[in-house]
Amino acid sequence: MTDSPRQVAQRPGGRTARVRAQILDATVRLVARHGIAGFRYEEVAELAGVHKMSVYRNWPDRDVLVGEALMGVAEEMAPLADTGDLRQDLVDFLVAMATSLADPWGRALMHAIQSSPESAEVRRTVDTVIDRRVDLLRRRLDSAVGLGQLPPVDAQLLADLLSGPVHLQVGRDQRPFTRADAERITDVVLAGVRATTP
Amino acid sequence: MTDSPRQVAQRPGGRTARVRAQILDATVRLVARHGIAGFRYEEVAELAGVHKMSVYRNWPDRDVLVGEALMGVAEEMAPLADTGDLRQDLVDFLVAMATSLADPWGRALMHAIQSSPESAEVRRTVDTVIDRRVDLLRRRLDSAVGLGQLPPVDAQLLADLLSGPVHLQVGRDQRPFTRADAERITDVVLAGVRATTP
Repeated sequence: MTDSPRQVAQRPGGRTARVRAQILDATVRLVARHGIAGFRYEEVAELAGVHKMSVYRNWPDRDVLVGEALMGVAEEMAPLADTGDLRQDLVDFLVAMATSLADPWGRALMHAIQSSPESAEVRRTVDTVIDRRVDLLRRRLDSAVGLGQLPPVDAQLLADLLSGPVHLQVGRDQRPFTRADAERITDVVLAGVRATTP
Repeated sequence: MTDSPRQVAQRPGGRTARVRAQILDATVRLVARHGIAGFRYEEVAELAGVHKMSVYRNWPDRDVLVGEALMGVAEEMAPLADTGDLRQDLVDFLVAMATSLADPWGRALMHAIQSSPESAEVRRTVDTVIDRRVDLLRRRLDSAVGLGQLPPVDAQLLADLLSGPVHLQVGRDQRPFTRADAERITDVVLAGVRATTP
């Protein structure tokens, strides 16, 4: 048996790889719409335009299916540049984060992040996403601290202070998240960190 | 026909009122577990220990069922005291918010808040919850501004800055939310608001 799912996935041009990509994409859309537990394999198959058995055969475990689908989302998350201008880079980061949280992939991820998933598989994906965001911030902050632009600060706390309000506002969906919103959040948080860190 | 659901609900001791309360409670638990779209009436009936027809008869529209169930949660949300000590009151508020977000009712509410519900009924509940939180904060802030303890500040922005990190940390569920967490968030946000508001 050389036709295991993982090996098949490594043949990007093949029909099987295409089917897998369609299934993962459909899964993300359904999680975005109904939450992690709120979709059926039949719906995935229908939305992906494949036979139900293709879903069951490749992902007999639904938590593995959700985990793998969300991991694909995580890999395309907002980047964090280092131009030397910390405020500018953080504002860009928050704007990109808001944009990606507002699309179906981001909505799926918000569902997963906010729902304390019971499945170890989905939990692992959520942890990876959060760790990646904190790592991105930590590297950017280390550079700012090195340049004396910022006192040493807990990257996890700063990540939550910056991205928490973005999550809430995008989730609320009452008006678009603007660059001015990102600037106000960044300014308050940076000033607050500078004023409270010894 | 005097036996409409609303009138029945006003007889707190009656069997029908008890059945309704059990159904609303079961709905909240299922939304907490599976999201707004992720449960079936059969499950509600089973968890509530009532016949499926009791659910259908009282709430033919599932969005009304979810909206009403969540509204009950909203009414028991974290209070915000005014002791004259703004920092203390906000820390208490965040600790109470974290506690209520971590229970099944809070999880249900987080699902609703984070998922930009498409249903007008659920959307109205979410808006009510958020408006109430912002109103609580606005009244407390007005008092602090009046005493010269704080510059005039956008209550919605402050609500997001304070509660966003709480939502993220409670949703992540990696460790308990502590009073020290509430203090750090409050201190950074208050210092940031003071430093950036003209």
